[in-house]
Amino acid sequence: MNFTFLGTGAGIPAKDRNVSAIAVSFPEYKGHIWLFDCGEATQHQILSSPIKLSKINRIFISHLHGDHIYGLPGLLGSRSFQGGSETLNIIGPKGLKDFIDVSLKVSSTHIKYPLHITEIEESSYIFDTEHFSIQIEPLEHGITSFGFRVVEKDQPGELLVDKLTEKGIMPGPIYKAIKTEKEVVLPNGEILKISNFIGPNKKGRSFALISDTRYCSSAKKLSEDVDLLIHEATFEEKLSNLAHDYYHSTTSQAAQIAKAANAAALILTHISSRYLKSDNERLLGEAKKLFLNTYLATDGWTYHLNRQPRSY
Amino acid sequence: MNFTFLGTGAGIPAKDRNVSAIAVSFPEYKGHIWLFDCGEATQHQILSSPIKLSKINRIFISHLHGDHIYGLPGLLGSRSFQGGSETLNIIGPKGLKDFIDVSLKVSSTHIKYPLHITEIEESSYIFDTEHFSIQIEPLEHGITSFGFRVVEKDQPGELLVDKLTEKGIMPGPIYKAIKTEKEVVLPNGEILKISNFIGPNKKGRSFALISDTRYCSSAKKLSEDVDLLIHEATFEEKLSNLAHDYYHSTTSQAAQIAKAANAAALILTHISSRYLKSDNERLLGEAKKLFLNTYLATDGWTYHLNRQPRSY
Repeated sequence: MNFTFLGTGAGIPAKDRNVSAIAVSFPEYKGHIWLFDCGEATQHQILSSPIKLSKINRIFISHLHGDHIYGLPGLLGSRSFQGGSETLNIIGPKGLKDFIDVSLKVSSTHIKYPLHITEIEESSYIFDTEHFSIQIEPLEHGITSFGFRVVEKDQPGELLVDKLTEKGIMPGPIYKAIKTEKEVVLPNGEILKISNFIGPNKKGRSFALISDTRYCSSAKKLSEDVDLLIHEATFEEKLSNLAHDYYHSTTSQAAQIAKAANAAALILTHISSRYLKSDNERLLGEAKKLFLNTYLATDGWTYHLNRQPRSY
Repeated sequence: MNFTFLGTGAGIPAKDRNVSAIAVSFPEYKGHIWLFDCGEATQHQILSSPIKLSKINRIFISHLHGDHIYGLPGLLGSRSFQGGSETLNIIGPKGLKDFIDVSLKVSSTHIKYPLHITEIEESSYIFDTEHFSIQIEPLEHGITSFGFRVVEKDQPGELLVDKLTEKGIMPGPIYKAIKTEKEVVLPNGEILKISNFIGPNKKGRSFALISDTRYCSSAKKLSEDVDLLIHEATFEEKLSNLAHDYYHSTTSQAAQIAKAANAAALILTHISSRYLKSDNERLLGEAKKLFLNTYLATDGWTYHLNRQPRSY
């Protein structure tokens, strides 16, 4: 599970930081890629990344501010132009469908793949994909803005080959039965209790993505015990009043959420264009004072979330 | 009058060539800037150019394909965010207003300057600004696509200071009267015929901008005797069948228009992403065979059109 930061800025594009987009790729699941937000020129950022448009099969939109959606029409068109044929699911706040429909219609853009748009109207929304459970909750941003919690389903444990070999059971078709059945009858009539020959379930990984919001309790709720929390940090610590007025968070507020929610790692993103490269260390330091395992995202950076990154 | 090529590609963005946009800046007219087309990430291209968003006061949209309009909502929002307060006039085909209105409304983008959108429904459209006459005619592109002819109004000639001095008339308030009146009565009662003391009118400059189209007669009509013709050249010479099928032009068709219309200079743009940097010389060569004074635009390049670039 790899997180590629395509745009880590806020509001308007700057030379160093484009507007919001994060790609999460799953080499372990058919190479599918999910996109969280899609600011203008996200497809341009993708040109200089390992991301393939045709592999994006889900797009999550946190909220409808331009710096999070204006890249959608172009990306949808280019995905079609480049031969993407798999179904694409987009989910986001009410209004999203109107924006996409009008943009594609006015520009005579004919998408050649099935495109499903889901608008969330409820205050919270939960659904499952084949490998993940997804929880969506409203944050505090002046307009409807959603945070996301994504939990990978647990995987069955490994076959304990040594123990099977002890029993004289060698690799072969019986291994498949052992993986799928509760009990297996051996040729000699012995009944094998499978649970004794399979290691413990492998815990699924989890992450939370908290885009534009004030410091709020929903952010903590979505982030409980996640392996990775990605949290907006538009402003520095001392501008908490400004952050409140503009419905954004500070570096240290993001760290407070990570700490309170017992997250394993924190990545700060959505950095105001007022900050220069030379400010990065200071901004990161403000969060690290409260939560040591923090990173500050930059455009083009990829974070790898391996299996079982910590013990439970 | 400076032409800055912000996007010289066709259809989808590539690393070397962004989708369509050309800025024409007028240092001689309050530094105003006009934009012709506004593909996605035009505002990003502007970040690395001398163009200031706040100085853009007119945007011309040739047609509504995504690679010519998807940069509009973001650019309009950023112009407001950066404090642009002057009226902005946008003109283009029917449907443009719906795209802009829905994009701004859905994203809760509140523009702080007066924004006027004119949709052209007639087959041709002519209007004047303070310094220019503008003619807009439909081309051939499958959907409505307009070409533009822009002619600067002639400027009054220079005062012939030597001749005035001969008459004993020295610089002073009387020079202002001489510039604006037909006759001036001198203190000694003599009547001065102003036309004898002013040089010939300075001919205004002219350019034509022919975006997406098949080879067509309107392109020639708009380009008659212009100082500069900017013409799309999506395909190389030998792909004229493809150009016809997709309603585009080839390098040599653009050159044929320039030659037939007696243009003074030709710039090729809107180059298909199938061509690499290493193809530039070949593409340019195809046009130069027919029309020597041809240039091939690249992203970020600026062409200066000085006054009276040729004799008439």
